[in-house]
Amino acid sequence: MKKKAVVCVSGGMDSLTALAFASLEHDLYLMHVDYGQLTEGKERDSFLQLAEHFKVPKEQVYVFQTDVLQKVGTSCLTDKSIEVPKTGVNPDTIPVSYVPFRNGNILAMATSLAEAIGATAIYAGFVEEDSSGYPDCREIFVAAFQRALVEGTKPGAHIELIMPVIQMSKMEVIKAAITLQAPIHLSWSCYEAEELACGVCDSCRLRIRGFSDMGLIDPAPYKVNVAWPKGAEVYDVSR
Amino acid sequence: MKKKAVVCVSGGMDSLTALAFASLEHDLYLMHVDYGQLTEGKERDSFLQLAEHFKVPKEQVYVFQTDVLQKVGTSCLTDKSIEVPKTGVNPDTIPVSYVPFRNGNILAMATSLAEAIGATAIYAGFVEEDSSGYPDCREIFVAAFQRALVEGTKPGAHIELIMPVIQMSKMEVIKAAITLQAPIHLSWSCYEAEELACGVCDSCRLRIRGFSDMGLIDPAPYKVNVAWPKGAEVYDVSR
Repeated sequence: MKKKAVVCVSGGMDSLTALAFASLEHDLYLMHVDYGQLTEGKERDSFLQLAEHFKVPKEQVYVFQTDVLQKVGTSCLTDKSIEVPKTGVNPDTIPVSYVPFRNGNILAMATSLAEAIGATAIYAGFVEEDSSGYPDCREIFVAAFQRALVEGTKPGAHIELIMPVIQMSKMEVIKAAITLQAPIHLSWSCYEAEELACGVCDSCRLRIRGFSDMGLIDPAPYKVNVAWPKGAEVYDVSR
Repeated sequence: MKKKAVVCVSGGMDSLTALAFASLEHDLYLMHVDYGQLTEGKERDSFLQLAEHFKVPKEQVYVFQTDVLQKVGTSCLTDKSIEVPKTGVNPDTIPVSYVPFRNGNILAMATSLAEAIGATAIYAGFVEEDSSGYPDCREIFVAAFQRALVEGTKPGAHIELIMPVIQMSKMEVIKAAITLQAPIHLSWSCYEAEELACGVCDSCRLRIRGFSDMGLIDPAPYKVNVAWPKGAEVYDVSR
């Protein structure tokens, strides 16, 4: 019998790839967090489509709700009066898209679920290397949280945090997703829009660069004209 | 100007005492978590009365909601089909009142709030010594979470977890509360009831023993006849 794993899935490309890794060896319990993010409608659609794609039974699919991150605010992902930056990623500062300790909250929720169902692993798609510089996406944070998880759960609970893409570049994430035949076309990364991706927020920029570096065209629809590499083809999971 | 502190307040005696300690030197930001606990109505009343007693401005009083702990279940505090144990505290096992990694979730929320408002401290009333044996009430867990908090927040955020009662016995908690003139009569500890405390759940038993050890009668109303020490008087904060 496969061991149970909780997979934290936002619906973006990174968490999709983490999910694809988890699917190789685990009985999947998927969780998505509705924290009042402005693009939650689209994110949740992606999440539910991914759950269907991976044939996860309905009773193993969780959408959790918390209001703390929206109430504390300070991020353009939860407060529509704060503009989403569109001028490009600055590797030296933490951008205003940072949601305070969001991943701490998500891992705490995942730990509760994992302990309750007896899962031995928690997967998430945190990316440190090629990211917006959020402190709670770093490997050193995950290692510290692992310690807290061990000390804060029952002695019998052996839960391991597994971050398969944390040290990958976006290109490597896409390469891994392709190798694992992950349905990239179902994922959603844009911080701002829900119909056509804006193409200029940090998340879109990182994603577009990843596909370009791979010599591919992202199947996601963009509002702006993206300068894809010459001769590139649209990535299609079905081929 | 006083430094800001986030205080996690359930409404029980331990968190009240932690709050009384915090009030000595901090500008208070109070948070209470509604996680679907069965006694939330009474707990929230206590919380709001404590906020009023300590004269905390309304905009610094937060009630957060999360559905994860109720959805994962397994505890008699969140699932009414699970009976609240009434036969006494067994120090060798983790009781069914344990809510999986609840305090991990609460500290994660507190961290988000503290980081967003620029608080330098988080207070909570976790008790390790004289408790029901929950893993996430232990000092070793708090120390590990402190590390995760440092690594998972912005470099400029210096937030310290302060647990003033963690190594106290219940009697010591009550002694401290009395010394600090904390309004014990506003607190609520019972796991089961909201009108008259049951007097026989683990939480009531610990509280009753604390008062008895102090030679005092708890001002809380009990459903059962409690064998208070001979000649004991009801504790009254106003005297």
